[in-house]
Formats: sequence, C-alpha cells, structure tokens
Amino acid sequence: PYMKKHNFFAGPAILPAPVLEQAAAAVSDFEGMGLSILEISHRSPQFVAVLNEAEALVRELLGVSDDFAVLFLTGGASSQFFVSAMNLLNEDQTAGYIDTGAWSAKAIKEAKNFGGVNVLASSKDGNYNYIPENIEIPSGLQYVHLTANNTIFGTQFAEFPETDAPLVADMSSEIFSRRLPMEKFGLIYAGAQKNMGPAGVTLAIVRKDLLGKVKRTLPTMLDYRTHIAKQSSFNTPPVFPIYVSMLTMRWVKAQGGVEAMEKHNADKAQLLYDEIDRNPKFRGTVANKASRSLMNVTFEPVDEADAQPFLDACEAAGCVGVKGHRSVGGFRASIYNSMPKSSVQALVDVMKSF
Amino acid sequence: PYMKKHNFFAGPAILPAPVLEQAAAAVSDFEGMGLSILEISHRSPQFVAVLNEAEALVRELLGVSDDFAVLFLTGGASSQFFVSAMNLLNEDQTAGYIDTGAWSAKAIKEAKNFGGVNVLASSKDGNYNYIPENIEIPSGLQYVHLTANNTIFGTQFAEFPETDAPLVADMSSEIFSRRLPMEKFGLIYAGAQKNMGPAGVTLAIVRKDLLGKVKRTLPTMLDYRTHIAKQSSFNTPPVFPIYVSMLTMRWVKAQGGVEAMEKHNADKAQLLYDEIDRNPKFRGTVANKASRSLMNVTFEPVDEADAQPFLDACEAAGCVGVKGHRSVGGFRASIYNSMPKSSVQALVDVMKSF
Ligand SMILES: Cc1ncc(COP(=O)(O)O)c(C=O)c1O
Ligand SMILES: Cc1ncc(COP(=O)(O)O)c(C=O)c1O
Ligand SMILES: [Mg+2]
Ligand SMILES: [Mg+2]
Ligand SMILES: [Mg+2]
Ligand SMILES: [Mg+2]
Repeated sequence: PYMKKHNFFAGPAILPAPVLEQAAAAVSDFEGMGLSILEISHRSPQFVAVLNEAEALVRELLGVSDDFAVLFLTGGASSQFFVSAMNLLNEDQTAGYIDTGAWSAKAIKEAKNFGGVNVLASSKDGNYNYIPENIEIPSGLQYVHLTANNTIFGTQFAEFPETDAPLVADMSSEIFSRRLPMEKFGLIYAGAQKNMGPAGVTLAIVRKDLLGKVKRTLPTMLDYRTHIAKQSSFNTPPVFPIYVSMLTMRWVKAQGGVEAMEKHNADKAQLLYDEIDRNPKFRGTVANKASRSLMNVTFEPVDEADAQPFLDACEAAGCVGVKGHRSVGGFRASIYNSMPKSSVQALVDVMKSF
Repeated sequence: PYMKKHNFFAGPAILPAPVLEQAAAAVSDFEGMGLSILEISHRSPQFVAVLNEAEALVRELLGVSDDFAVLFLTGGASSQFFVSAMNLLNEDQTAGYIDTGAWSAKAIKEAKNFGGVNVLASSKDGNYNYIPENIEIPSGLQYVHLTANNTIFGTQFAEFPETDAPLVADMSSEIFSRRLPMEKFGLIYAGAQKNMGPAGVTLAIVRKDLLGKVKRTLPTMLDYRTHIAKQSSFNTPPVFPIYVSMLTMRWVKAQGGVEAMEKHNADKAQLLYDEIDRNPKFRGTVANKASRSLMNVTFEPVDEADAQPFLDACEAAGCVGVKGHRSVGGFRASIYNSMPKSSVQALVDVMKSF
C-alpha cells in the first residue's frame, strides 16, 4: 500500500517485510485471542510460548549449548558495557579490552569502575579504520572484550583472537550474520535493533559457570542469575520487541539459518565493495580488506564536493540512511541480514550512474 | 475484524482501541515514510518529534514544571527500585519507606544496598489489605518512598502523606489516573505496561535539584543525569513502546485529561465495588473503603467453591484476566484508564447472573 524504501539505516534498521506484516497483524489481534499482543500478560501461555521459541531459536541458529543461558534483557548494549564487568570482574582482577572505536571505548570506560582494564590493542592511531592483528594476549585475564563489528567505522573481526580467557563480545551489529565458534565465548551481547529485531530488547548469551564469582552485591535486576532463574521474566519483559525478534529469527531460520545469512551477506557486501573499488568517484574508508565489515559498509567521495549531491541522488532513488556517522563523515550503507540484494543493487546503480 | 475481549489483565493491560489501530498502521508504514516505525532511526526527525510530544504530554497531563525532568527509560519499575536509591541516597543517609506489599518490599530490599532504610509503616499484619494511616514521619529523611497503588493487593493511597521530605512514588499501576500534587514529589516512576502503554518503557519524572549529590560513582546508564542531558536518547530508546505510550497519552488528553480520567475511573470503580458489596456471593478483600484501589479491584467468593465456576462464567462472557494474583487468591479486575465502563458493566452482569 506504500512505496517501500531501501533502508540503509544503521539501527534501528531494516526488518524483513513478512516480519513487519505479521507484527502489524499481532498488534491488531494476537493469534485469534481477541486481544492485541500489546495488551496481553507476559505470563499468558501465548507469550510464554513466544519467549520459549525465541530462546530455542537463538540456541538453534548459533549452536548454543546448555552451558550457556540465553537472556532477553533491556537497557541496550550500552547497559551491558557495565553489567558485563559488574557480573564478571572483581576489583582485584583484570580484563583485557580491544579498542576498535567508540563502542569499545565506552565499554572500557564502564569496566574501569569494577576492576582492572588492560587495553590490549587499539586502532585509535588510524581513527579506527582497521582491526588490530596478531594481538599479544597475556594469560591470567578474566576475559577479553571486543566489539565484533564496529557499526560506526565499518570494521569487523574476520577471525576472533586466540586467548585462554573467554571472549566477551558486543555483537550488536552482527548477531546472526555468521556462524560463531561458541567455545571461545563467555558472553555475547547485542542490542536487538540492528540484526535481530526492533529497539527495546537486548540479547545476552552467557556461560553460566562464569557467574556468581564476584564479591560485590549486585542489584537484583543487574545480576544475570536473576534473569536465568526466571527465564527472562523476573519482571515484565519487553513483550513486543521480543515477539518481533522471535519472528525475525524464524525468518533467518527459514532462509537457511546463519550459514545462509553468511553467504547472502558476503555476496551483498562484495557487490557494494566492488563498486566502491571500481568507481573512481568513491573510495572505502577502511584501511585493509580484511578489516572491512560485511554489515556496515563505509565509504567516501574522492571529491568532497560530491558528498551532498550523492546523498540527494540516493534519496531520489529511495535509498535512505546512507549518510555516514558524524564521527567519520562520508557514507555508510548498513546491509544487515534483512537487506535484500536488490536494495544493495539499487544503491550500486545510483553509484554507477552518478 | 476480531471478537474483542473485555481485558481485565493487571499488566501488560488494556490499551485504547484507537491507539491499537494507529499502532498497527505505524508498524506497516509510519507517517507515509515508506518505512515501518520498527525500522527507523531513533535520531530521525520523525521519531524525535514523537519523543518531544511524549514529554510534552507528560508535562501537560500531570502539570509537571521545568523543575522536573521527564525521562523514558527501560528496565521496568523493578530497576527503579534500586536506581532511585542509587541516585538519591548516600551510605550515611536514611530514606523512609512505607510497606504496602510485595512491590514496596522489593523497593526496600534494593535500597538497603545504598543507604539507611527506615520502614515508617507497614500493613503486613493484615496481609497488606489496607493503607497505613496517620503515619508519623520523622524529619531528616532523604526521601519517603511509597507504592501509590498496589496492583496485587488492590490498595491505593487516597491521599499522600504529609512530610518535609520529597516523596518517591512507584506509580506503575496508576500513572495518569488522577491529578497529582506535584509539589510533594521528588521522583515518580512507572513501568508503562499498565496505564501508559505497552511493556518496554519506564517513565521517570525526577526533580533535577535532587541529583548529583551522592558520592558513589554511577554507571553512565544508571545516572538520571545522563538521560536528562540527552533527552532519553543517550543510547537507543525503545522506539515503539514510546510511540504507543505517546499515542495513549494523546488519547487521555482527548478524553479530557487526567481530571476526566479521575471521574471516569471513580465511576467505573463504584459500579464494581457496589456490586461486590451488594451481591451476597462476593466480598471485597480490602479492609476499608478508604484503602480501596480504583485501578485494581480485588474481591473473593464468599463460598470458596464458587471460585472456578465464576472464572469460567467470566471467560464465557469474554471477560479475561479476572483471576487474582497467586499471593492473594480470589479475583482481581484491573480497570485502568483505557477500560470502558461497558466492560466493567459486562463483568457486573456476570456477577449479577451468577
Ligand atoms: C556495536 C554497538 N555497540 C553498542 C551500541 C549501543 O547500543 P544500545 O543503543 O542498544 O545501547 C551500538 C549501537 O548503537 C552498537 O552499534
Ligand atoms: C506497583 C508495581 N510496581 C512495580 C512493578 C514491576 O514493574 P516492572 O515489571 O515494570 O519491573 C509492578 C508490576 O508488575 C507493579 O504493579
Ligand atoms: Mg568499538
Ligand atoms: Mg573507488
Ligand atoms: Mg507495594
Ligand atoms: Mg457482597
């Protein structure tokens, strides 16, 4: 009924069209209950089924074993910056952090209130335009934190570093985009609003044996164990954001799971990076190909005078959200799981005829 | 298109029918943007306008001056139990708490981790079936915390206690249901999912001059000042829950504001309490009329054998959510702002013909 745009926003971001259709229907009437999904009890069997399915889908899509808890929380990835350290790091212990930009820097800042922080590597010297390689990681760290995909700078860890400490990873802008070596992780967290669902829910996948070891008193709501014991319903969870995330995971599964997403995402990213490299009017902002993100493609005009005209051309072609983050400038095309190749092609067409 | 139920759930709870209609439409296409409201940036002018209107409506509906900040947070009222004390109470200070049941008890428990707690009064001796009166409040308290309306026990403060300390009030199950003496309050908080919107957003109205006085280091996301400085957009706010809350507030305003709600709610509550009192098969569970909630009407069968048959009769008449909370038993009819009198009448009709 409306002219659908090509949505390149970094987050909240594009969701699959069939998910949006089902979500709209559930707001009118949820599963024939005669009630909207917005007005049903979180303890109703219908919503408990949604929550159970959401957890099962996370486990299935990423191969998450029972050693881990799967939690649907709130507060965004920004809250996990401190909640992760609060739950996992004592005053007299040290965690390693890899600094690949704004999000890592915030995680580092918050962790320092809870214990020792050892910044193992940083790409600050290049305005975060690369992922540090061959990082020397000392032993004895409580965990090693990294931003798997940096949404702002368009960088992504192609491989995860080798370390004897569990990895704690902010996967906000790449969750479900590729297969993961789960055995390396102690905690994965992600704000939903990029690759998983709408804003308002935060996924946490945490290895249970790491919990209950800090000496401080945790507020009940900040202790992962509270939410584990009550299956994310200690208090009222964000019902609708969880429902739409579940629908999105169902959609990922129907497409062939994260393995299929991985191929689909590599394919879309190549289409766009190839054009950036080929086209003399544009260049990528990331220093090397190995550091390039498959989720957030950052580039810039060779001639600064082309910046606004190109954004105008994008808008005219129905491509929205292409403007780069203010701290980098230039352009950013976020091409998450739900982005069809045809939308990437639409953007490439604008570049070709620009 | 569907058989609408009479929704007596305690929360998440009934929302106005026109709000649900607009919400469903926005999930398909938001304001002709060619995008769903679930996939637009929280920094887009369209959503910034929603956030501004939501704040303005809170201010207008409750008469909130510039001395207060109006914040849209996450984590539910359960997070405010500790966040309020963390922001307002030093280790060497004492706050007063009035204990009117489960929710107060949780607030008390969480506050004890941050400073002194003086329980000024409790109705525990009567399984919380009344609101303590003529409470003696010493001076020198940092604030006095109360649960304005107790959702579980069906009790409500008809008047707020006199004290020289600012009141901190959990208004989760009564926000926007009546006019408030704002000059008495230092902080009001409410999970949205009863009287304000869907689950996933938490309202906080805080007097700005009370902030910045505690000595502890606050995690950035837990400092009210962070969210004041960034107008509830320091990180990604729960876009859709805020949007639907804004629509609900617009609806309250269109009905004549909280003054009209107050009359409407008193009228509905009287209809139901009159039938409870008149009908020999039912009795109220609250000890005195002054303590009765206008939001959550708790009652029980005189003959315990009537319990299940009455719930069945309710279901048959399309009245859902009438079962009492497990800690009280019996029945509970939650009749929030959005509940039409015709739905209360439908329940009364079931009682009359039972
Ligand atoms: C990698 C990354 N981490 C953290 C955040 C912050 O997430 P939130 O807004 O959910 O707190 C974002 C997005 O905004 C992000 O892209
Ligand atoms: C009075 C009151 N306070 C607090 C809560 C807990 O709220 P939330 O689930 O938003 O944490 C509730 C409802 O469940 C409530 O009724
Ligand atoms: Mg980073
Ligand atoms: Mg080029
Ligand atoms: Mg209480
Ligand atoms: Mg009676």
